[in-house]
Amino acid sequence: MRTKPFVRTLLALSLSSATLFAVQAQDAAPAAYRTVNELIAASAPEDWRTPNPENTLYLELASGRVVFELAPAFAPKHAENIRTLIRDGYFDGLAIIRSQDNYVVQWGDPEEDEKKARPFKTAKAKLAGEFTVPWQDSMPFTRLPDDDGYAQVVGFSNGFWIGRDLRTQETWLTHCYGTLGVARGNETDSGNGAQLYVTTGHAPRHLDRNITLAGRVIHGIELLSTLPRGAPPMGFYATPEQRIPIKSMHVATDVPEKDRTPLEVLRTDTPLFTQIIESKRNRRDPWTQLPAGHIELCNVPLPVRLKATGTD
Amino acid sequence: MRTKPFVRTLLALSLSSATLFAVQAQDAAPAAYRTVNELIAASAPEDWRTPNPENTLYLELASGRVVFELAPAFAPKHAENIRTLIRDGYFDGLAIIRSQDNYVVQWGDPEEDEKKARPFKTAKAKLAGEFTVPWQDSMPFTRLPDDDGYAQVVGFSNGFWIGRDLRTQETWLTHCYGTLGVARGNETDSGNGAQLYVTTGHAPRHLDRNITLAGRVIHGIELLSTLPRGAPPMGFYATPEQRIPIKSMHVATDVPEKDRTPLEVLRTDTPLFTQIIESKRNRRDPWTQLPAGHIELCNVPLPVRLKATGTD
Repeated sequence: MRTKPFVRTLLALSLSSATLFAVQAQDAAPAAYRTVNELIAASAPEDWRTPNPENTLYLELASGRVVFELAPAFAPKHAENIRTLIRDGYFDGLAIIRSQDNYVVQWGDPEEDEKKARPFKTAKAKLAGEFTVPWQDSMPFTRLPDDDGYAQVVGFSNGFWIGRDLRTQETWLTHCYGTLGVARGNETDSGNGAQLYVTTGHAPRHLDRNITLAGRVIHGIELLSTLPRGAPPMGFYATPEQRIPIKSMHVATDVPEKDRTPLEVLRTDTPLFTQIIESKRNRRDPWTQLPAGHIELCNVPLPVRLKATGTD
Repeated sequence: MRTKPFVRTLLALSLSSATLFAVQAQDAAPAAYRTVNELIAASAPEDWRTPNPENTLYLELASGRVVFELAPAFAPKHAENIRTLIRDGYFDGLAIIRSQDNYVVQWGDPEEDEKKARPFKTAKAKLAGEFTVPWQDSMPFTRLPDDDGYAQVVGFSNGFWIGRDLRTQETWLTHCYGTLGVARGNETDSGNGAQLYVTTGHAPRHLDRNITLAGRVIHGIELLSTLPRGAPPMGFYATPEQRIPIKSMHVATDVPEKDRTPLEVLRTDTPLFTQIIESKRNRRDPWTQLPAGHIELCNVPLPVRLKATGTD
């Protein structure tokens, strides 16, 4: 369907479609232009990295596995506590308790009564929020050339969307589609990683620096984003039967290598990634009439691929 | 669950939770602050409007009804052609053919062969793109105080997110979550409304002014946003069995009044709406540590409610 020149209007809305058309383009002027998909197709092995299994989390649902990469540089204590909770078996048998349209999916212990709630074994029950961390010169940074309304400067570090303030020297992960966050109550130390959420809608950037973000989904987000929505206004499932059971969570290190999901994440500190940003900032494919000349942080793709296993 | 003060961290991520806490707040300083929900709760009947049934579309699925409001001021010819297609029964029995995660849901005729495709009866087969329209002084406009990277000026007109260029005097609907668009091929006149899409992910604003937008979803978007995702990269369903059948589409005018969905949309040309924008730009509820002092266009809520019917 996608390769036919006809297909009335079907092809429009995608970078991919532009790729398919690009080979037919007669116009020589934008000959140097390459789409994101073309750039990725031309990538070298060193443009990719394999996430550290100690920073790789698996959420096992009946529908399949969601894979996360933790960003310990931006939330070191929460990354450690989340690993501890997982290794304590804290999440196993708990449930996804919330799915609010255009906002978040959230999971943890639905028990309202603190006395009956699942205890934290070796994990900390409270942790000071890691809403920002001090910038370290050792952090890689690819700056986005465009202004951002929520941060003085934005860009990418080690495969994550980040904000920076060059005056205060603070940095933080930003909310984008797929960001993994640590829910909290009104007290800033009331989140410990036992309630986690993922952004599944238009990025709620106003939450940046108000809550601890710990990483992002790198595979299987559709298992979360397609979940039935819970009751308005907040999307909590009204009955226990509606909740989605969690079979288990694991740190990839603790999973036999043959059972891991072999993923590679595109590096964000390479010339290729800079070219990808520019390719999306100014689309010059046959479909585009008016290149935007701008890109909003969360619209920059952070590609992930299944590693060739060599078995087939 | 939401009213208990404990509920470890469950309450965090919502304006609604802040509302629930606000009545308990001891701090007198931000006494004047009202959350979006509080502002809506205090709204007057004249803060709301009933969409014109001639601009109200119903998409009937086995799972329920999705309701759209057309914006004929921004795409007059497409609004008219979409109504004609609907009244010709064009969509009845066709299907949702695409669901791409964090992007769009799209429907229409999946037939690849132009000769076998469903004919357009009285509707136009081609229409010049209405990517922008000339600004009219009669158009209401509530300007967002914040800068936008994709448009010189952004704001709201008659309940829609819009962009404006004050130099060229052009205006256009913008892509936000829930926007209704007219898919097209590479030719700018190749979309006629027979293939429609809805944005179901982070707003792809770079498509603004490159495609005709015709309105937005005002009810039932979760019936689209939770659909199983199709095959990567573009999300087209790989087999006919995966497609979601469309029972019918209707213009509300043609539906008996008792069978219409009685909706009211918040007006965007009122002092209340300006207060709502400011309330979200600078959240000063007990949960928020750092008000953003900024809001991105698509994060401004455009509330819709079911009209009280007086029957109980």
